[in-house]
Amino acid sequence: MFKLYYAPGTCALASHIALEEAGAAYTTERLDFKANQQNSPEYLAINPKGRVPSLVTDRGILTETPAMLAFIAQSFPQAKLAPLEDAFAFAQAQAFNSYLCSTVHVAHAHKLRGARWATEESSFADMKRKVPQTVGACFALIERDMLRGPWVMGEQYTICDPYLYTIAGWLEGDGVDLAALPKVADHRKRMSERPAVRKVLAEEQA
Amino acid sequence: MFKLYYAPGTCALASHIALEEAGAAYTTERLDFKANQQNSPEYLAINPKGRVPSLVTDRGILTETPAMLAFIAQSFPQAKLAPLEDAFAFAQAQAFNSYLCSTVHVAHAHKLRGARWATEESSFADMKRKVPQTVGACFALIERDMLRGPWVMGEQYTICDPYLYTIAGWLEGDGVDLAALPKVADHRKRMSERPAVRKVLAEEQA
Repeated sequence: MFKLYYAPGTCALASHIALEEAGAAYTTERLDFKANQQNSPEYLAINPKGRVPSLVTDRGILTETPAMLAFIAQSFPQAKLAPLEDAFAFAQAQAFNSYLCSTVHVAHAHKLRGARWATEESSFADMKRKVPQTVGACFALIERDMLRGPWVMGEQYTICDPYLYTIAGWLEGDGVDLAALPKVADHRKRMSERPAVRKVLAEEQA
Repeated sequence: MFKLYYAPGTCALASHIALEEAGAAYTTERLDFKANQQNSPEYLAINPKGRVPSLVTDRGILTETPAMLAFIAQSFPQAKLAPLEDAFAFAQAQAFNSYLCSTVHVAHAHKLRGARWATEESSFADMKRKVPQTVGACFALIERDMLRGPWVMGEQYTICDPYLYTIAGWLEGDGVDLAALPKVADHRKRMSERPAVRKVLAEEQA
């Protein structure tokens, strides 16, 4: 039995969907970011980084979305959420998720989390102004070179799909025009129709 | 036969060391960042992100350090560079590498790459001033909670070690005091004595 710590509107959605798609037995615990619960002593004992997601397992606690997604895929091989028998194809899926984590999510984070990397209000405003451009450039590359269709890796639905869906859900808020991203928009629509996604969103938005 | 594109002083060093430790058959191609070779049409055809590392394989091209490191470990299982038979332990190694990639390297990048996320010189200067604090906080966490010793994952040398070694090599330049990080300093010293590391550094620094 796993326990997922999440907060609505965060990248934890990707792991939440993956757990549901895998048919995993899991419970969830919602953190209240407005109350800064992610930095409470209780939560820092679970994840000293003060971030979500965290996944409590009977072996210990995992953090970092790309690692958790690969773990979910490997723990439930019958769900076929990654090409586990093909190291190169697995690496391609992991490279996609690593790009989302270290480049795309980071670009997005400069909208509201500038204080992670700077001190002055003028810098925060400068960073915020650039987000449509930086996130837009990331998604232009995803649209052109990465998203094979209908799913990220092609015919097979994988752990890349809930992660892309999660971050693509931030595009309007980041000031990026979805009309220039027809494949991403199509992917987002197709994801939103999956029963696992509907179920998870109903819980997170309740 | 693999071909690794790298530039000296970059995170490509981690994959370079891992290839050497794995006993892989590989060649290297050095990019001249001062000449902006990473953004040449020739290189953008290999990696449209204009970054290093890139690994050319007979199946295609891989990018993103965490994905490449896991691929190298899986491709050369006899080198035992990751706990491949234990999904949870593998996920812990991947979580460590994901943290280096998406948080630690990103914190460091705000020293010289502020133009990725902002436009004004004043913002770049502000970001640069904060790097000792942000990178220092990351390494304090690594020192306290993550680096088990003697290697990152404990007794077994893994793909986490060359990656930590690579980023820890930037600490002085980032204004972080190594004296407060005895485990990290010890790890760096032990890494620097490995024959594979000596060989790779000799090539990159030639």
